[in-house]
Amino acid sequence: MMAEFFNVLPPDEARALLLAHLTTPPATETVATADALGRVTARPILAPHPLPTFRRSTMDGYAVRAADTHGASETLPALLRVVGEVGMGRAASVAVGPGEAASVHTGGMIPDTAGAVVQVEHTQRIDRAALAGFPYEIEVLRPVAEGQNVIQVGEDVAGGAEVLAAGRRLRPQDLGGLLALGLTSVAVARRPRVAILATGDEVVAPEATPGPGQVRDINSYTIAALAQTAGGLPRRWGIVADDLAALRAAAEAALAESEMVVITAGSSVSARDMTATVIAGLGAPGVLLHGVATRPGKPTIVGAVAGKPVLGLPGNPVSALVQFDMFGVPALYHLQGLAGPPPRQRVWARLAANVPSASGREDYVPARLEQDAGGLLAVPVFGKSNLIYTLVGADGLIVVPLNRAGLMAGDTVEVRLF
Amino acid sequence: MMAEFFNVLPPDEARALLLAHLTTPPATETVATADALGRVTARPILAPHPLPTFRRSTMDGYAVRAADTHGASETLPALLRVVGEVGMGRAASVAVGPGEAASVHTGGMIPDTAGAVVQVEHTQRIDRAALAGFPYEIEVLRPVAEGQNVIQVGEDVAGGAEVLAAGRRLRPQDLGGLLALGLTSVAVARRPRVAILATGDEVVAPEATPGPGQVRDINSYTIAALAQTAGGLPRRWGIVADDLAALRAAAEAALAESEMVVITAGSSVSARDMTATVIAGLGAPGVLLHGVATRPGKPTIVGAVAGKPVLGLPGNPVSALVQFDMFGVPALYHLQGLAGPPPRQRVWARLAANVPSASGREDYVPARLEQDAGGLLAVPVFGKSNLIYTLVGADGLIVVPLNRAGLMAGDTVEVRLF
Repeated sequence: MMAEFFNVLPPDEARALLLAHLTTPPATETVATADALGRVTARPILAPHPLPTFRRSTMDGYAVRAADTHGASETLPALLRVVGEVGMGRAASVAVGPGEAASVHTGGMIPDTAGAVVQVEHTQRIDRAALAGFPYEIEVLRPVAEGQNVIQVGEDVAGGAEVLAAGRRLRPQDLGGLLALGLTSVAVARRPRVAILATGDEVVAPEATPGPGQVRDINSYTIAALAQTAGGLPRRWGIVADDLAALRAAAEAALAESEMVVITAGSSVSARDMTATVIAGLGAPGVLLHGVATRPGKPTIVGAVAGKPVLGLPGNPVSALVQFDMFGVPALYHLQGLAGPPPRQRVWARLAANVPSASGREDYVPARLEQDAGGLLAVPVFGKSNLIYTLVGADGLIVVPLNRAGLMAGDTVEVRLF
Repeated sequence: MMAEFFNVLPPDEARALLLAHLTTPPATETVATADALGRVTARPILAPHPLPTFRRSTMDGYAVRAADTHGASETLPALLRVVGEVGMGRAASVAVGPGEAASVHTGGMIPDTAGAVVQVEHTQRIDRAALAGFPYEIEVLRPVAEGQNVIQVGEDVAGGAEVLAAGRRLRPQDLGGLLALGLTSVAVARRPRVAILATGDEVVAPEATPGPGQVRDINSYTIAALAQTAGGLPRRWGIVADDLAALRAAAEAALAESEMVVITAGSSVSARDMTATVIAGLGAPGVLLHGVATRPGKPTIVGAVAGKPVLGLPGNPVSALVQFDMFGVPALYHLQGLAGPPPRQRVWARLAANVPSASGREDYVPARLEQDAGGLLAVPVFGKSNLIYTLVGADGLIVVPLNRAGLMAGDTVEVRLF
């Protein structure tokens, strides 16, 4: 039996072992920045020019020489002559001499000869009769310092600065930062192709009517969905007969055209052993470990072949999904060169019931969140680990750490949301 | 001036006012369950049959009559005769009489005549010579109770039970739950179409080289990306000239073929007023409020026309994105009939520096997260609100509540991640 040759590892060590066997850096491609949401930068990105490229006003008001406003107050305003206006989207061609000002709008360009902006609320027009044209006179009621209400050239980002490191997952604002610099395309990691194979003589397609003893394949779909959220390009290879030659042939073909292979085994021991045999035969190093110290999910097979992760997941749907989240998702991030995986959504809540566990094993217990007078309550959803509706009815998983023999009602616990 | 007629509302009241003016229930469509990740259920979904449909073993072992094992122990084992095997995916056609057992696998069907399963580790074969066929004899070393190691019919979900309520955003496990019941298609809310119009004489397309005083349009892209993550179908309508007739025509056309319209105004006051005039003229009720008590984002225009949200966002990119997150994203969830919006990702961290604010205003301060010896540290990224790189450099936003005049270094603060 394969299983006897491998130790059961704690989950963190198991994950580190897997990641250490994966290929880096990722293959890259160039995509339109507008379509790059969620993609991971392949290289550091430098600003081709400073931002902004011209001095801009942050206020509607008047561009002035700051010295002309020094000492100005409500009782002793400074008198300035407005000699023109800078239109939005236009060059600031107005020259502002001593004692002069130019009307400017928020976001507009500041004339070279001005050093600050007085906001319109701190001024007063004194020649109301002549609203139509320039020049006209204003009183400035407060002083401004040099540079006040002005965004300097390069204040947002300096020319040549690294604006995004390699390995960054692009968010809406990151797309904005790139486009502001005219970077309309970006080099990103290719999305890893994830081949998902289901095995098990009892497994039929979801559209089929199962006969006695048969169940529908759901793991192919739940894992595809989770792979997609982690940046993978899932492809379901369907249900492979519980036959060594057939599974081997399918796994080899899947490996050849994918960056990751996931086999969800039938739930019996013999089906799992066959999966291990197939993974071991795909190439070096093959099976890295056969067993993880968690519940659910102990019989997970973690392997790697030629730098590609190959996972053999338990057939029961809760274990399969939790284990893919534990190994498949980090592997996908790693394959994309992601510097830091996105933080998990988690909340803290009071535990509503005792949760038994065993020391030396990390337990994941589905939980529903409820709000009561005392705050957020985590209600464990108990159920055998092959019941998919324990996960459907849950908002997240309570983690019982490796070194704890259980958790008590009333304990404050972390709930990982999903 | 439009602005004078509208009060500045606190963000929660402003959001409630908007949602109260939106159409429900959403238009629906039927999609393949395999493609329904992230979609929102349009109706409650009932189980067409129980799950599982047959009694299943949770162990590799032997299906037995529980009474036959009572009192069994290592020293006084119960002797049973194994009369056959239930193959995976097969009907359990073996009859288990008194003193008999049937070999079963994890996930396999239990014969009608058996009531429990003894796991193989708690048994011992005594006639090792006759491994090939049935019958053979085993010793059972521990008793099992009626129903032990058996999943009953309907234990996962009962036939006719509501398995998903209306208004649920589908997660990977929810797809699995539906497919396990053979529900290969599902009625969901249509994705709301979001029209995004940019205005401003200073705004040029990202692929253009801006002249003096010009800047590239980035709001159309950041808002499209955020709308997409909230389930919307964004369409960029491009840059509309800063001209009342042109903006009105574009907004009317956009409204006719969308469920939401977003106008990102030029950054000047006159551009914002024009946006308000256009929204007011689109239909009833038009502008709901012109101003929200937040920084950034005070000059946001919140409107609704014929049940569709119409937003006029400030031109500066930080305000536009934060305000769309505050109004556009909840509106999109509401339009999809989502019962409870997904929880925001948030962490608690120690504040690294004082953050000034003003009472009566909710402030959002971009912050970078760092890990130090004392735990997670939130480092405010200060910068004028029109600098997109303050958001690019941030992991989230610190929220300074309405009733606080600021936060102090060392305070524990909530950081909303993005």
